[in-house]
Amino acid sequence: MSTDDTAETVRDDAARERLIDLAAQFYDQFALGDIPHMEVPTRTKSNIEYDPEKKVWVYGDRTSTRTANTVGGAQKLLKAVYTIDFLAQQLEEDRSSTLRELYYLSESWDNENAQFKSQDESNQLVEDLEIVSEVTREDFHMRPEESGATVIGPLFLREQTRRGEREIHCQEDVGEGGYQIPNNPDTIEFLDHDADFVLCVETGGMRDRLVENGFDTDYNCIVVHLKGQPARATRRITKRLHDELDLPVVVFTDGDPWSYRIYGSVAYGSIKSAHLSEYLATPEAKFVGIRPQDIQEYDLPADPLSDSDVNALESELEDPRYQTAFWEEQIGLQLDIGKKSEQQALASRGLDFVTETYLPERLTEMGII
Amino acid sequence: MSTDDTAETVRDDAARERLIDLAAQFYDQFALGDIPHMEVPTRTKSNIEYDPEKKVWVYGDRTSTRTANTVGGAQKLLKAVYTIDFLAQQLEEDRSSTLRELYYLSESWDNENAQFKSQDESNQLVEDLEIVSEVTREDFHMRPEESGATVIGPLFLREQTRRGEREIHCQEDVGEGGYQIPNNPDTIEFLDHDADFVLCVETGGMRDRLVENGFDTDYNCIVVHLKGQPARATRRITKRLHDELDLPVVVFTDGDPWSYRIYGSVAYGSIKSAHLSEYLATPEAKFVGIRPQDIQEYDLPADPLSDSDVNALESELEDPRYQTAFWEEQIGLQLDIGKKSEQQALASRGLDFVTETYLPERLTEMGII
Repeated sequence: MSTDDTAETVRDDAARERLIDLAAQFYDQFALGDIPHMEVPTRTKSNIEYDPEKKVWVYGDRTSTRTANTVGGAQKLLKAVYTIDFLAQQLEEDRSSTLRELYYLSESWDNENAQFKSQDESNQLVEDLEIVSEVTREDFHMRPEESGATVIGPLFLREQTRRGEREIHCQEDVGEGGYQIPNNPDTIEFLDHDADFVLCVETGGMRDRLVENGFDTDYNCIVVHLKGQPARATRRITKRLHDELDLPVVVFTDGDPWSYRIYGSVAYGSIKSAHLSEYLATPEAKFVGIRPQDIQEYDLPADPLSDSDVNALESELEDPRYQTAFWEEQIGLQLDIGKKSEQQALASRGLDFVTETYLPERLTEMGII
Repeated sequence: MSTDDTAETVRDDAARERLIDLAAQFYDQFALGDIPHMEVPTRTKSNIEYDPEKKVWVYGDRTSTRTANTVGGAQKLLKAVYTIDFLAQQLEEDRSSTLRELYYLSESWDNENAQFKSQDESNQLVEDLEIVSEVTREDFHMRPEESGATVIGPLFLREQTRRGEREIHCQEDVGEGGYQIPNNPDTIEFLDHDADFVLCVETGGMRDRLVENGFDTDYNCIVVHLKGQPARATRRITKRLHDELDLPVVVFTDGDPWSYRIYGSVAYGSIKSAHLSEYLATPEAKFVGIRPQDIQEYDLPADPLSDSDVNALESELEDPRYQTAFWEEQIGLQLDIGKKSEQQALASRGLDFVTETYLPERLTEMGII
């Protein structure tokens, strides 16, 4: 058994222990004559705060109590106990499952009261357990339904798979499609790299353009495909590339309010996963573009803003994450000019414009290259 | 230069010649005193026929003529000529681009009348050129915006990339995410394999379950992730695995009318891409399940059919592709029982039920294993 197996096993054991501790609490409460209960941070918008120092979303102080003093509450705790039992066993056997499988699997549980009535219910319970145990879903070995983003660039890594270790260079050992990020990127160890920065790209068309033009080799950059709103695995590997390899991270998206939210979820985390901000968010990530200013300066083909675009921009202006000089200026400008552009609109200046002019200019301005 | 480079170059040259022939036609027409025109099969539903022998959709005999005898028609041909010029140059320089880039790029063309007004217009023109030249979009080096499906299994292949050749074993040289299918899978050469069949899987959750349970190694099977409605590249590689390696192909999806259409697009092609059926469709592909019969026999958790499910099933009964004893029986049964199930519903019988019981039973019945 290699040292990585051991590291993996240690993490699994730790996660299992946290889970069993949770269940043990209920026993202790029984023993003390208390009604079993579990306390979780209140997960409403009003109890989520932007932490300006950490630059990510975190929960506030309010908590809610799940208690067995009603039939409904008792059923919730029963479901939690069955789920804990399932997850602990899954970790012991080094297996994994999806959220949807958990929902269906509950039909096989012997106590009908423990079975989930809907997938929302099981999803929410797993999120509660994540928050209370401070163990991430990935460390419970729960997989997402789909992930599928890729990485290409001067990065040499080792992935711990069920079939043994795989050592992969993300340029030399992969096809043009790149290296497929596994569901849990914490099974990856970075062995070596020759990169100067990480470039996260929203669309597949632009990702393929950068790869075709050899941008990753010319600029020693690791290209991470976000595929629209990035999956947890994509955000996690981005954060690890930043933290462990000390690489600057830049985000390159379309120039519209929905894409600014993609940048936001890489940089600041999301309200929905505020408990994971420290695990997933890269507050140091910078926005390359497309900036509204670029639409003007480079005279890009543009579409008029729709009403919902305008509403989204206005609500971003009220969002503490975007209350910086940069975003206030850019969003204000976009509302003035009433236009948005896609990243591929740069092709109106030729297929090489993005790699020969736009990105080099922007990255120089930003001090990245 | 290796033999593959040569094969690649030969194909590029052939595609370029077909394009230039198209443009040359217009010159000939001018020389003969004819008004330039281009004939394309009429692409309405009424001119698409199911060919029961080839078991795929093909165009009927009706054609439409694009002619320069109106200003609108002349502009269409002008756009065609500019696009042909761009594509021919792209092939000569061994470059590629996306449909969206083509649309934006037209803004840089010197004749304003040649510029596209919408992306629908440029997309349709490229489809017209595909049909008239009998060269596929991939051979024009036009990339899709997104592809992203993966393969895992006992298959050793060589991919021709811009960075040179890559030889990859789709179990030993990849992480748990598998091998990422490139946008144009015709850059792949199959070198060796140890597979007995190909299993195409609709959902990521089920794909990951099969990989975790080692189904590809235990049953010598190549698992192709369809990711919902499969991209062209995914259908193309499936067809090539069938044709070139002589492997049976089975399709495993959810048990609802929308998933039967996913099977249909793998097996019979789609109305939208009837001109590509012979390139993309695998009429010999068989449907494993989830069959309505399985919902009953394995007592799977199910949801009631919605009105739109019922409508979709009824329209499938009128679709010549589904007018087989198998589909008539299964769809009839589904309308009777009024239920649908997801593939992950098999988890209600335990996480290993799909790989230890369901698939072995079904594949034995079907004569695959």
